[in-house]
Amino acid sequence: MTDMRYLFEPKSIAVIGASHDTAKIGYRVIENIVLSGYPHKVYPINPRGGEILGLQVFKALEDINNPIDLACIVIPAKLVFDAVKNCADKGVKIALIITSGFSEVGNIQEEKRIATYARENGLRILGPNIFGIYSAGVSLNATFGARDVRPGNVAIVTQSGALGASMIGKTAVENIGISAMVSVGNKADIDESDLLEYLLTQDMTKIIFMYVEGVREGERLVKVLNGATKNKPVVVIKSGRSAKGAIAVASHTGSLAGTDEVFDAIMRQSGVLRAESLQDAFDWCKFLSNNPLPHGENTVIITNGGGVGVMTADACEKYGVRLYDDVPALGEIFSDIIPDFGSTKNPIDLTGQATTSEFDGALNAALKSDTIDAVIALMSEVAVFDAENLPGLIENHYQHFKSQGKPILFSCFGGDKVEDCIKSCSTKGFPVFGDVYEAVSCLGGMYSYYNYLVNRSDEIAVADIQVETIEETVRRVREDKRNFLLAHEARAIMKAARIQTPTSQVARSLDEAVRHSEAIGYPVVMKLVSKDIVHKSDAGGVALDLENRDEVIDAYQAIIQSCKAYDPNAKIEGVDISKMARPGIELIIGARRDKTFGPIVMFGLGGIYVEVMKDISFRAFPLSRNEAMNMVKEIRSYPLLLGVRGEKKKDATGIVDTIIKLGTIIQECEIGDI
Amino acid sequence: MTDMRYLFEPKSIAVIGASHDTAKIGYRVIENIVLSGYPHKVYPINPRGGEILGLQVFKALEDINNPIDLACIVIPAKLVFDAVKNCADKGVKIALIITSGFSEVGNIQEEKRIATYARENGLRILGPNIFGIYSAGVSLNATFGARDVRPGNVAIVTQSGALGASMIGKTAVENIGISAMVSVGNKADIDESDLLEYLLTQDMTKIIFMYVEGVREGERLVKVLNGATKNKPVVVIKSGRSAKGAIAVASHTGSLAGTDEVFDAIMRQSGVLRAESLQDAFDWCKFLSNNPLPHGENTVIITNGGGVGVMTADACEKYGVRLYDDVPALGEIFSDIIPDFGSTKNPIDLTGQATTSEFDGALNAALKSDTIDAVIALMSEVAVFDAENLPGLIENHYQHFKSQGKPILFSCFGGDKVEDCIKSCSTKGFPVFGDVYEAVSCLGGMYSYYNYLVNRSDEIAVADIQVETIEETVRRVREDKRNFLLAHEARAIMKAARIQTPTSQVARSLDEAVRHSEAIGYPVVMKLVSKDIVHKSDAGGVALDLENRDEVIDAYQAIIQSCKAYDPNAKIEGVDISKMARPGIELIIGARRDKTFGPIVMFGLGGIYVEVMKDISFRAFPLSRNEAMNMVKEIRSYPLLLGVRGEKKKDATGIVDTIIKLGTIIQECEIGDI
Repeated sequence: MTDMRYLFEPKSIAVIGASHDTAKIGYRVIENIVLSGYPHKVYPINPRGGEILGLQVFKALEDINNPIDLACIVIPAKLVFDAVKNCADKGVKIALIITSGFSEVGNIQEEKRIATYARENGLRILGPNIFGIYSAGVSLNATFGARDVRPGNVAIVTQSGALGASMIGKTAVENIGISAMVSVGNKADIDESDLLEYLLTQDMTKIIFMYVEGVREGERLVKVLNGATKNKPVVVIKSGRSAKGAIAVASHTGSLAGTDEVFDAIMRQSGVLRAESLQDAFDWCKFLSNNPLPHGENTVIITNGGGVGVMTADACEKYGVRLYDDVPALGEIFSDIIPDFGSTKNPIDLTGQATTSEFDGALNAALKSDTIDAVIALMSEVAVFDAENLPGLIENHYQHFKSQGKPILFSCFGGDKVEDCIKSCSTKGFPVFGDVYEAVSCLGGMYSYYNYLVNRSDEIAVADIQVETIEETVRRVREDKRNFLLAHEARAIMKAARIQTPTSQVARSLDEAVRHSEAIGYPVVMKLVSKDIVHKSDAGGVALDLENRDEVIDAYQAIIQSCKAYDPNAKIEGVDISKMARPGIELIIGARRDKTFGPIVMFGLGGIYVEVMKDISFRAFPLSRNEAMNMVKEIRSYPLLLGVRGEKKKDATGIVDTIIKLGTIIQECEIGDI
Repeated sequence: MTDMRYLFEPKSIAVIGASHDTAKIGYRVIENIVLSGYPHKVYPINPRGGEILGLQVFKALEDINNPIDLACIVIPAKLVFDAVKNCADKGVKIALIITSGFSEVGNIQEEKRIATYARENGLRILGPNIFGIYSAGVSLNATFGARDVRPGNVAIVTQSGALGASMIGKTAVENIGISAMVSVGNKADIDESDLLEYLLTQDMTKIIFMYVEGVREGERLVKVLNGATKNKPVVVIKSGRSAKGAIAVASHTGSLAGTDEVFDAIMRQSGVLRAESLQDAFDWCKFLSNNPLPHGENTVIITNGGGVGVMTADACEKYGVRLYDDVPALGEIFSDIIPDFGSTKNPIDLTGQATTSEFDGALNAALKSDTIDAVIALMSEVAVFDAENLPGLIENHYQHFKSQGKPILFSCFGGDKVEDCIKSCSTKGFPVFGDVYEAVSCLGGMYSYYNYLVNRSDEIAVADIQVETIEETVRRVREDKRNFLLAHEARAIMKAARIQTPTSQVARSLDEAVRHSEAIGYPVVMKLVSKDIVHKSDAGGVALDLENRDEVIDAYQAIIQSCKAYDPNAKIEGVDISKMARPGIELIIGARRDKTFGPIVMFGLGGIYVEVMKDISFRAFPLSRNEAMNMVKEIRSYPLLLGVRGEKKKDATGIVDTIIKLGTIIQECEIGDI
């Protein structure tokens, strides 16, 4: 594999299509490279030759005597193939094809031709249809976007070139420092996974933000993401959340597995923070890249306004931030500082009489306390509040808290002085917000990542199943030209996977039917066995809840008679006698091979509710037992499994076992697609 | 009732506790009144006399010879009662008690004493524990908050004084024009309803924003809100959304009726827009106060970036904004303007090649089209985009759209030029946003209000029930010292309300049991009738699914025998024979008298799911049939009622009838509390 360092840290760049015309993208790109201070060799290529921005223009790539790491291609689509050929001949490592007009407008063939040629000749391609690359490590801005990028520690990978181009400006406005920014465009070759593999090891990058529209090699992406989130947070936006359709297959599991639901579940499983809006994504990136992870979950709100305090508590519940609620401990920490009519219950209310000096005292107390892990400070500009001292207070405490590994966030509310303070602090990278929901959303993102790290496990649960038996059973079904299993086949597979089913036996005579029933124990269920009659109920081939020998005899005779009448030519092999299951809660456990993400397991409430309530959870397989248990706990009706109205607690461990067994079948067995 | 015009448009004001000390609130208030340009008479009151800000200070209220409409009281809590007495003596119409230190810190008695005295002597009280009042109509700023308020058309009513005080500054920063701002504090007398009644008729106020912590007279508030939303939008924040507990009563309906859920349902029913964060509330107020309501729901997204377009479509689904999806019509409107590789499907994609002039064309086309009702324009600063022309483009189209009653919103994304444009446009009140979710949230709020107005109905459904019969039944139960109904009592009430129940008859002998069963028709259910045995199942007093005469005879004997064994002293009156109901979907319909909001109806999925899934809806009663049907449609499991898996459609009209009957019982009958 070509090292992605040639992309992010090239030692030489050629710009194929460098233009003399300052209005053209071919000029814009070379201008950005030159003026952004890239320290290595840059070779403009243009058949007209001459000079651009003081650089000698080469008429062709082969005229350059030195090796080229990276080539930026900014020429019309129809000329790109030849340029790629030249790059391969010249031994260029990676070509950025900025040019658009390929698969995104239906020109799929040409894109394939280029990608195939490049692959066969050892050249890697980024694009086509991209805005270029920015890489802070080598002061490289090879894009047609804005020039001024603030270097920093956020890496951005975007599928949309337009979004990438405008994000250059936007991140500068938001004072977000960038380590690298790159768009993947049509992903003819290099995709997010390739880029992530590099970025997760790159020191300068502390957090990665990805904008995704569609995922191709999902299994690989998930693996790479799992590796990445172990080391640094990854924030993802995937647009098309609301897209309907996509899965037309009517199978139970399939019909529910709306792509976005699966994507969402897998991102959470991989510890990825999924943002809905760009604003949230930027806020989270900025906050997570500038602030330490907490040591625990005890968060304290300190406020001079009761109402804002309550709103913040609401926001904490929404975003999963846990409020420290040890009232005596809080009393001890804060009672010296809080006035009598204030509150030492969380939110800590300094009352409207508080000035920055009361805040100073309370924040010092929170800083000193070993049991407080994070602080949200809320300043409302009420009568006596000295807003002019606010910037100093914030800077001072932010630095102290940061040095002790304690996150602190400020939300300030008031007039011009306060607004100026928010802006100036924000420019310096301090976590100061104008709205409490914004602040708590950031802390919630951090705790989501914190909890992932605390609970993550590399353990992988795999069940011991008889792979050959299952494959053989399915092979025979295929030979029979069926894509559904008969009851005994399903049972054989479950047996091979050691999934418990009600005891059952096939009886080929009335005598055997009675014998099996007595052996199994009443009540039993009797079902016709005949591959000629698939809809057994319609044929009168099912009898439930048989409680004694007499009922078994009656049922046997009724079933045989009724089925013979239903289809005189059907070959009747006998009846299946099973233990009648006791009433309980109907659940569904599923597994399938997703086209994008590979093996997927699913769990949920069964019966008619699975369609209507969609109370289901998904995970990529394999997973840990712990994660499988999280699937079980995640559904809304989980309390039903704990036993409501005096019912017994259900066997959650048994569910986890079955999820893992089903997942293992899908992962291990070669059983083809349906 | 004292006219609230004395509060919002006083012709004279006394400030009791006007201070010479510029650091004191008593100075701050009078300074704000004088410098804000209040044109009528202001009388500072202070026993020390002298002069403040050029005004003669009176030593006592009685020294003033002219009538006083409004008195602001800013003296220590212990002196307030006497000041209130003086106000009443002087014939002051309304007293604002800014002073805190009353019920909010446990000093409930003193607050009551003041309120009672005032009420008995014809003085209305606002407060105590408030920040004062701002009223643009008379240039009055009688608060201790910031002085510079931007006059405009948003009225703010807040329960939190601190929040109010800081909101003065915040609204100025956000360029939100204020018609009035007032805090209600401890609501010793005047509450939100009094203020709303005035504000809904006040021309200057186009939209009302309320911050609420707790509601007292909910029934009245709902009535006033219903009147208000008919004329202007009302935005509400209620903090304490996440508060647990509150309702300890274990009854089914009660235990589910988390106060916040009920509040939320009733606000929606009243057409109130409930915001979660202050930022959303401000955004909505600003947008709704500056922009026309649309004529229909066909919204079009026009973009130069595909990715941002998709994100916006996601946001539209989230916020209930309906995208216009008539593809041929859209093609006709936009095909001349869109390049070949763009898209005339909604989102309309002008592609990254678009400049402001392409936007100009597309927006003109959208403006001209009669079928397009609202537009979201998304500008990303990509290569060729001429951001310098953006402010002109926005201003021009904003004005045109506005004059045609078509809402338009802009979301712009890019560097400094774009950011400056957002700021300058926003200052002018144009709906220009930095994030698409912010923009769509505003349009969603507008459509939520639009749909409320379109669907609202003053029709009220009331059922024809036998009030006396029900009251008499309940009266007898009370006499019997019970707070639960026996089966036949419940059935009597349902009959009096014309709610259908399975046919049933009490049999006092075996013979009668058989006769009733034959008359009712098999299968039947048999239940013991004895008020000495409440837990009938435990006593073996219930038999289900009796299919013939023989089974009825067996069951009768078994029940009598078993119950006699269970309690030899129990007086057995006979057995109740009912038609056995066929299996179906278990639903729950409830009604109760809420302490805050009065009669409430509830509907949901029944059985164990009601506890676990909480799939229920609430409304205040009375309501229209249409609104009752909305309750039915609102639950997640509504598709079950439409019939899934080939089941028959359920009788939704019957559910609506029953909801209305139950609500009518609770509303009309004097049956006391449980």
